[in-house]
Amino acid sequence: MPALFDGLKRILVGRPFSTEQLKKKPLPPKIALPVFSSSALSSLAYAPDEILLTLAMAGVAATMLSPAVGVAVLVVLVVLVLSYRQSIKAYPSGGGDYEIVRTNLGARPGTAVAAALLVDFVLTVAVSSSSAAQYLSGLFPVLGEHRGLVAAGIVVFLVVANLRGRGQSRWALAVPVYLFVFGMLALIAIGGLLAATGKLGLAPSAEFTIVPEEQFSNGLHGVVGALLILRAFSTGSAVLTGIEVPISNVQSLAKPRARNAGRILLVVGLLSGVLTLGTLMLARASGIKVVADPQKSLMLDGLPVSADYVQVPVLGQLAQAVFGDFMLGTVVVSVLTILVLLLAGNQAFNSFPSLASHLATDGYLPRQLRTRGDRLGFSNGILSLGVAAVLLVLVFQGDVTILIQLYVVGVFVSFTLSQLGMLKHWNRELVPVADRRIRAAKKRQRLLNLVGLVLSGLVLLIVLATRFVHGAWIAVLGIVLLMFVMNSLHRHYQQVDAELSIEDGGQATALPARVHALVLVSTLRKPVLRALAFARASRPSKLEAIIVDVEPQKTQRTLQDWERLRIPVPITALASPYRDIPGALIEHIRSIKRESPRDLIVVYIPEYVVGHWWEQLVHNQTALRVKNRLHYEPGVLIASVPWRLLSAKNALGGGPTEESSAHREPKPLPKD
Amino acid sequence: MPALFDGLKRILVGRPFSTEQLKKKPLPPKIALPVFSSSALSSLAYAPDEILLTLAMAGVAATMLSPAVGVAVLVVLVVLVLSYRQSIKAYPSGGGDYEIVRTNLGARPGTAVAAALLVDFVLTVAVSSSSAAQYLSGLFPVLGEHRGLVAAGIVVFLVVANLRGRGQSRWALAVPVYLFVFGMLALIAIGGLLAATGKLGLAPSAEFTIVPEEQFSNGLHGVVGALLILRAFSTGSAVLTGIEVPISNVQSLAKPRARNAGRILLVVGLLSGVLTLGTLMLARASGIKVVADPQKSLMLDGLPVSADYVQVPVLGQLAQAVFGDFMLGTVVVSVLTILVLLLAGNQAFNSFPSLASHLATDGYLPRQLRTRGDRLGFSNGILSLGVAAVLLVLVFQGDVTILIQLYVVGVFVSFTLSQLGMLKHWNRELVPVADRRIRAAKKRQRLLNLVGLVLSGLVLLIVLATRFVHGAWIAVLGIVLLMFVMNSLHRHYQQVDAELSIEDGGQATALPARVHALVLVSTLRKPVLRALAFARASRPSKLEAIIVDVEPQKTQRTLQDWERLRIPVPITALASPYRDIPGALIEHIRSIKRESPRDLIVVYIPEYVVGHWWEQLVHNQTALRVKNRLHYEPGVLIASVPWRLLSAKNALGGGPTEESSAHREPKPLPKD
Repeated sequence: MPALFDGLKRILVGRPFSTEQLKKKPLPPKIALPVFSSSALSSLAYAPDEILLTLAMAGVAATMLSPAVGVAVLVVLVVLVLSYRQSIKAYPSGGGDYEIVRTNLGARPGTAVAAALLVDFVLTVAVSSSSAAQYLSGLFPVLGEHRGLVAAGIVVFLVVANLRGRGQSRWALAVPVYLFVFGMLALIAIGGLLAATGKLGLAPSAEFTIVPEEQFSNGLHGVVGALLILRAFSTGSAVLTGIEVPISNVQSLAKPRARNAGRILLVVGLLSGVLTLGTLMLARASGIKVVADPQKSLMLDGLPVSADYVQVPVLGQLAQAVFGDFMLGTVVVSVLTILVLLLAGNQAFNSFPSLASHLATDGYLPRQLRTRGDRLGFSNGILSLGVAAVLLVLVFQGDVTILIQLYVVGVFVSFTLSQLGMLKHWNRELVPVADRRIRAAKKRQRLLNLVGLVLSGLVLLIVLATRFVHGAWIAVLGIVLLMFVMNSLHRHYQQVDAELSIEDGGQATALPARVHALVLVSTLRKPVLRALAFARASRPSKLEAIIVDVEPQKTQRTLQDWERLRIPVPITALASPYRDIPGALIEHIRSIKRESPRDLIVVYIPEYVVGHWWEQLVHNQTALRVKNRLHYEPGVLIASVPWRLLSAKNALGGGPTEESSAHREPKPLPKD
Repeated sequence: MPALFDGLKRILVGRPFSTEQLKKKPLPPKIALPVFSSSALSSLAYAPDEILLTLAMAGVAATMLSPAVGVAVLVVLVVLVLSYRQSIKAYPSGGGDYEIVRTNLGARPGTAVAAALLVDFVLTVAVSSSSAAQYLSGLFPVLGEHRGLVAAGIVVFLVVANLRGRGQSRWALAVPVYLFVFGMLALIAIGGLLAATGKLGLAPSAEFTIVPEEQFSNGLHGVVGALLILRAFSTGSAVLTGIEVPISNVQSLAKPRARNAGRILLVVGLLSGVLTLGTLMLARASGIKVVADPQKSLMLDGLPVSADYVQVPVLGQLAQAVFGDFMLGTVVVSVLTILVLLLAGNQAFNSFPSLASHLATDGYLPRQLRTRGDRLGFSNGILSLGVAAVLLVLVFQGDVTILIQLYVVGVFVSFTLSQLGMLKHWNRELVPVADRRIRAAKKRQRLLNLVGLVLSGLVLLIVLATRFVHGAWIAVLGIVLLMFVMNSLHRHYQQVDAELSIEDGGQATALPARVHALVLVSTLRKPVLRALAFARASRPSKLEAIIVDVEPQKTQRTLQDWERLRIPVPITALASPYRDIPGALIEHIRSIKRESPRDLIVVYIPEYVVGHWWEQLVHNQTALRVKNRLHYEPGVLIASVPWRLLSAKNALGGGPTEESSAHREPKPLPKD
């Protein structure tokens, strides 16, 4: 079993890397820009769709508002980009929103942001892989029915790729993003040119009519209409996801770090804005129609569309409208989009484990999240993220529309708290400053964060108000649960620390008076002799063998063997009317303790080491029970004396072979 | 967690019993008769039904043959009862079929019989509980839809009752059987009297007509017809299940044991025969119609019966025919039948664990099956039987007709092998005998077993030939799998025995030259100081603390603390470029071993004892991994130094309280 598992792991993950290889070269801006922008830019794959299909609920006329909604989103984008540029300057250490909130608002809000970010990263993976699955099923319609499974497959692929870790070349991460950006810019430029000259073709879905939902049969009116527009706006805010990536990764940039990060942020914001607005305008011009449920809401010549109609996402339809019959263009756009979505997911696989390990170091998450795996990645973090994302895409069957709601909640919780933190930061900064010009500058900066706070708070409120029962509650619940776990763990670790830290070093180092060794015996066989030999080798003050009398005949036989073989150690048989071996042993130990409380009691337990899992089921059960119970007895040392059965020596993986451990030769470090 | 589990166990199972209470009083015949016959007599609840519904596939005319089929079954019954009386005389030790086959045919066929019997007991429980569920849903029609669940509930009830164990009074087991027998005898006597005087009423189902299956549209003809009759015969042989119970329980009878067992067997056979034949004849006289699928095969006035028609079993319909409107009579018959079915299932819960423990003692099943639980029952055997039976009734939705096929396979495999064993027994017995009269007697006895062998082999062949693909294969597979497991385990235990037995006592008792103690350190906290103190108390020849350098900063801090606190033990930092703590430790151990191969190496590992399961997840993970890997290193002793965290001391179930262990005070046994 271990060998099988080990072999599989080697194939999937590869040979281990040395800790030496951890040092990274800083990223020059030309690589950092694409790497850090994949997350933000990938939202182009789904955000325009979500705006359009939300508005489509009120019919075709409503979808004409999409560029206006896009502009509203861009306003938020501009404000947040500018305010994050301020944040980078104020907090250039790479701690991101978590650091800003923790420093300015305290530990509790800090864990809230951390929880929101963790939820966020999970949703980045879930949304990206689901959207990628959607584009894939545009290329291979047969995948359409199993979108949840395809998305799960993509997540698994990302997990394996990230467990392999550093194998990835940096350019491999950068090139697809450049291609995507230039491709999309070209698409929008050509499309714009065609539209300006009146030559832009219609999208395949232009000929459909949209059946509005019942409450919008009279168009977009009243409170319901306003709420729908707000919903489209908040959903469209998914465009902003990922713009915080540069600030969280300042440390991996080439110098001047903060300056480079600020520039990257600006370019990312600019590209995001141009591409989103361009896409929305061209979508309107080419008559693209996207709805939540095509079979329900799309009509062609007065009849519902056929059941096998597969809705192509906006970018795909746009490529068809611009390139016309030029199939290759459409395929290229889809493939590039899928690649960028994969890179966005991949980015989350860097951010999540690194934040989790940071939190584990601070004692807010289990210590295991700090362990670097064979390939230096935080394997446990990668696996946790993978499991959570797979669960989400399977539960929601890769439905981007629902997942987006959860995503926006997570993102805007951290945006809002981060803005609040920056507000406090400026208030504190303003106190000691007397110079008027400096004060004015800081006040302007504070104003920007205030606007940012209002806007991001607004988006959060709208999502929660309109989509709480439709799924947003899951994100809220996830954040709250994570906060609870983090705070409980923190308290626990602190208690343990206080309990275990050495103040004077007196009490705990007191040497036990004498050592009283007990060897647990059932039948007299080789492992017992070895346990006795080991026990005698450590020269205890007193040594006795113990047999608990559960089956009188067996006990008698063992006692007879004992005499026959002239074992030079006294044996005591403990009566146990209730056949409770650990119980009898513990009672015996307690009576020893009563007589000489300062004695150390060492219980030697012979144990079999077996080669197969099923052998574990038929051996060692008593030893296991005894060990578990003894653990709760104070002042008892439990010594396992392993006896490797032949099956363990023969079985594959019975132990490390000389070969596999050859490259791990440890050297004693020089002490200093 | 342990406390919660413990509390639940106490409520369900009760307080533990002392081993003293194990001694049983022998059963006088008047109690032994009902107790040992419940299994055989309970077949009356379903065997007549199965004969009738099998024949009904060929229409009403075919069902008229049921008494004839019954007579054929009775012939087998008589032969087997007589031959088992011989077996009891020859093998009065209570080993039953297993002993007969093992002694005469060898170990392999012995395991085959044992496997068949174990499968049998599982099916006794499955069939009895399913049939009981059927009678229950006659009383409470609402249960009809959930027959599988009801049957599973009955199995769980039996499991709990048997885990509680000896609480059952013997008369409680005996009285229902007496009531059932007298009730059934009365029913048949009254019914016979009424039939003789022409006053027997018709059963409720008499007015139906039966639609024969297509292949029997011309009645019971040709090979297909003959096969159907054979099928009815083999299925009806379910009447014989349970007649082997007295021979397996000879030892619990009052003296003269063999004689009492023989008598009981005779009475059981007689009662079985009379009741089965009487039931079949009265069923024909009162026009009872039972089919596999009422909605498919029953017609009333040319129309199929309504979908909510619930088919009442034969005994129930018979009671209605005899007692007419006297509802109470019907209810009483149903209740008694259910009680006898429960007792039959209960009997299997005695037989299975006792056979399993016997097999475990012989090394054919895991040793855990020998462990007596708190209430002296073989808890693990009881639980295994319960789990297997629950699985069966859930998979087959409590369908008696299918389960019967598997049941007959198991029963007749052991009957057949047992008869074969007895044949061999007589052949061996005949060799030294010269006296003609004695030879003639033994030859007569041998002839009886030969006839028994042919008949039971025939039944087995028919079941396998007609029902193999319809479910009998499952029983065959179960038997073969069990045989495989038993033989593999036996080989394994023998190997281990050979490997561990002490021939000369020389090599294994050799004392290690010196003790080299290592204490595993990560951060310097109280548990480490305790581990050091314990290690020093055992005065090793050499003592060093080991820290594996995975995180250089952490290692440096620990080394500084070490110096600051002036710990009087040298500490060695092992480099581990691949962050593999167990690997580095093992390499160090191997280099020590290379220098002084006869040294005993003791690795002290500080461990936390926690109060909640989730704390286990966030502590001790490294200790666990190190211990697992060290187990495979020869010549290494692993010493866990537990440190009970406050949470373990506070948590419920953190350890045995004084109260709960008060009644378990062990006393040292006098040595002899």
